[in-house]
Amino acid sequence: MERVYKKVELVGVSSKSFDDAVNNAIEKASKTLHGLAWFEVTEHHGRIADGKVAEYQAVVKVAFKID
Amino acid sequence: MERVYKKVELVGVSSKSFDDAVNNAIEKASKTLHGLAWFEVTEHHGRIADGKVAEYQAVVKVAFKID
Amino acid sequence: MERVYKKVELVGVSSKSFDDAVNNAIEKASKTLHGLAWFEVTEHHGRIADGKVAEYQAVVKVAFKID
Amino acid sequence: MERVYKKVELVGVSSKSFDDAVNNAIEKASKTLHGLAWFEVTEHHGRIADGKVAEYQAVVKVAFKID
Amino acid sequence: MERVYKKVELVGVSSKSFDDAVNNAIEKASKTLHGLAWFEVTEHHGRIADGKVAEYQAVVKVAFKID
Amino acid sequence: MERVYKKVELVGVSSKSFDDAVNNAIEKASKTLHGLAWFEVTEHHGRIADGKVAEYQAVVKVAFKID
Amino acid sequence: MERVYKKVELVGVSSKSFDDAVNNAIEKASKTLHGLAWFEVTEHHGRIADGKVAEYQAVVKVAFKID
Amino acid sequence: MERVYKKVELVGVSSKSFDDAVNNAIEKASKTLHGLAWFEVTEHHGRIADGKVAEYQAVVKVAFKID
Amino acid sequence: MERVYKKVELVGVSSKSFDDAVNNAIEKASKTLHGLAWFEVTEHHGRIADGKVAEYQAVVKVAFKID
Amino acid sequence: MERVYKKVELVGVSSKSFDDAVNNAIEKASKTLHGLAWFEVTEHHGRIADGKVAEYQAVVKVAFKID
Amino acid sequence: MERVYKKVELVGVSSKSFDDAVNNAIEKASKTLHGLAWFEVTEHHGRIADGKVAEYQAVVKVAFKID
Amino acid sequence: MERVYKKVELVGVSSKSFDDAVNNAIEKASKTLHGLAWFEVTEHHGRIADGKVAEYQAVVKVAFKID
Repeated sequence: MERVYKKVELVGVSSKSFDDAVNNAIEKASKTLHGLAWFEVTEHHGRIADGKVAEYQAVVKVAFKID
Repeated sequence: MERVYKKVELVGVSSKSFDDAVNNAIEKASKTLHGLAWFEVTEHHGRIADGKVAEYQAVVKVAFKID
Repeated sequence: MERVYKKVELVGVSSKSFDDAVNNAIEKASKTLHGLAWFEVTEHHGRIADGKVAEYQAVVKVAFKID
Repeated sequence: MERVYKKVELVGVSSKSFDDAVNNAIEKASKTLHGLAWFEVTEHHGRIADGKVAEYQAVVKVAFKID
Repeated sequence: MERVYKKVELVGVSSKSFDDAVNNAIEKASKTLHGLAWFEVTEHHGRIADGKVAEYQAVVKVAFKID
Repeated sequence: MERVYKKVELVGVSSKSFDDAVNNAIEKASKTLHGLAWFEVTEHHGRIADGKVAEYQAVVKVAFKID
Repeated sequence: MERVYKKVELVGVSSKSFDDAVNNAIEKASKTLHGLAWFEVTEHHGRIADGKVAEYQAVVKVAFKID
Repeated sequence: MERVYKKVELVGVSSKSFDDAVNNAIEKASKTLHGLAWFEVTEHHGRIADGKVAEYQAVVKVAFKID
Repeated sequence: MERVYKKVELVGVSSKSFDDAVNNAIEKASKTLHGLAWFEVTEHHGRIADGKVAEYQAVVKVAFKID
Repeated sequence: MERVYKKVELVGVSSKSFDDAVNNAIEKASKTLHGLAWFEVTEHHGRIADGKVAEYQAVVKVAFKID
Repeated sequence: MERVYKKVELVGVSSKSFDDAVNNAIEKASKTLHGLAWFEVTEHHGRIADGKVAEYQAVVKVAFKID
Repeated sequence: MERVYKKVELVGVSSKSFDDAVNNAIEKASKTLHGLAWFEVTEHHGRIADGKVAEYQAVVKVAFKID
């Protein structure tokens, strides 16, 4: 029961949607980190080009268990 | 004009999207509460399994008119 | 390099999704403002009717370069 | 000394003033809850009609002792 | 249903009360803006003179529909 | 997987410690609510008497699954 | 132009209104402090008795020039 | 009923626990201030030495009645 | 005494310093707005290039009196 | 004097107390990081089982000097 | 190790820079307080005159050890 | 377009100025991290010695692209 998690703060970017931006961040994290447990989205922003949303950017804290 | 609303704080969970998590919370609320008027999403988080988003969790305050 | 941006605060409304509400705000802004550069979503709320989400409302700050 | 309070979140509405909106919320709460002890006003907003304040809305957390 | 609001941030000043400071901000806004819909008071401060409140100052965000 | 939680906000009081104040809130909640899942402590305050801490008060949000 | 202010944090209490609670705090401060310049109201709360507001309590930061 | 409190902000330090750090702040305050009424803990931090907690530091606002 | 201010939110950019970024925002504002009275810096961020600060960016709210 | 610290965000878990959860996070950090200097507790939450606190969870930022 | 600090909240003003405003606040504090240990800048604002920054104002909390 | 950034939280220290403290943090980060893109200053504090600012400390989040 006495365990410790670490949170890393990522920014996922997507041209499709905020949910996709969140998924991009988590899939990237899962390539180098094991034991991913939960995530928290703390900010939603993005880039505009030609008067439209060009990029959805989600700031995501990802937590994983430290061995 | 002199009326009063109550807010309850819910956490909707969905395997599909954050919007779906919000809808789950509101549809559940509508089964027992009448006069639902507006909602506010205050937090977006979720659970990760196998390196992917397993659950989208939306914290939702739902306001309804008190008779 | 010495340039200045202005941010305006909008509330986009959509019957479909929060992403769509964000897009509505930005497309409306692009009709009268030039040089839109980025946006920040600061609040997610909405209106409920008949026990379902009737409107998704996204508060969006839109930044554009001042000439 | 070992006692517990519960807080409920209300929104009082008044056409007269913010103080009156707070009072409306508390008087409504007192009809169904006993042991009301204190309150906290967390937001002040309202509705505008014909270029004037039509409604003062106060978000009020009301605390009462649980038996 | 697909509509957009804009919020402007004002500071109303009154020698009488905070409610009056809020009203001053909204009445001023109504002279140049159409479609005022709601307001949010985000700060309450003021100026002191001769050991008494000389001015009540209310920071008020006013929202109106963009055509 | 499509489930919904509700959060209630309590204030636990104890003459012993903040941890004990948290426990008092949760034990009281467990008498009337089923499916308690997690809690969040959002404020720590208290009452002073005779120049010493007389009461530890913990504001605790308690989440439980809605059937 | 090189001057310094100090802020003190007070809680004014009134049985009449929030504005009156603010005034009570400032008038009390003016009895011992000189050069009061401005104030900021940071919290609005109060006590309930017999199902009605018994006390309006305003947390007020008061700033004054240091000689 | 028309009374005024002042809050002072202290940082209590203890090698034992956060609760003890809070108590140290309040006992120190009680040596020079009368009418201590309540306290609010706003931050919990500390110092580390040799890979262990060396000091628990609690930021505590202490309120007392002004005569 | 019954007057109203408007705040606009700008982002000043400078290659030199944060103070210079603030000044850029205010000087730009002064070209089109009259009666500038005060400003508030709400965020400090910037861009990095070649491992060094390339741009200081200050988010600045500028207040001016409305006639 | 020109030195730099890094902060990492951990979540310590304990079945005993919040102080113990903080200690678990710091002791885990000290196994792989040198020069631990200070910590900040930013959130207190936990898990409930059988109507009692099953786990105390403390979110802890730990700062250490970078060589 | 069991010691207590007090924080006072000051506003330093300078015509030169924000850093200078911070220094003004601390130098003023050092004339009447002993054992100044650390400071925290919580707000950056200022006054505008003739379309330029006339005053930099830094809100500074200064902590000192209580004997 | 589908890319991910990571943010790390640093504390830069300088005896000269806050801008210098920010630069120290970023230059240190650039020695071990590639693709630094932007930074955010979230806190300004420091140490006092002999009644003067001895150290400016800037909490800086630095973002870089993950390959």
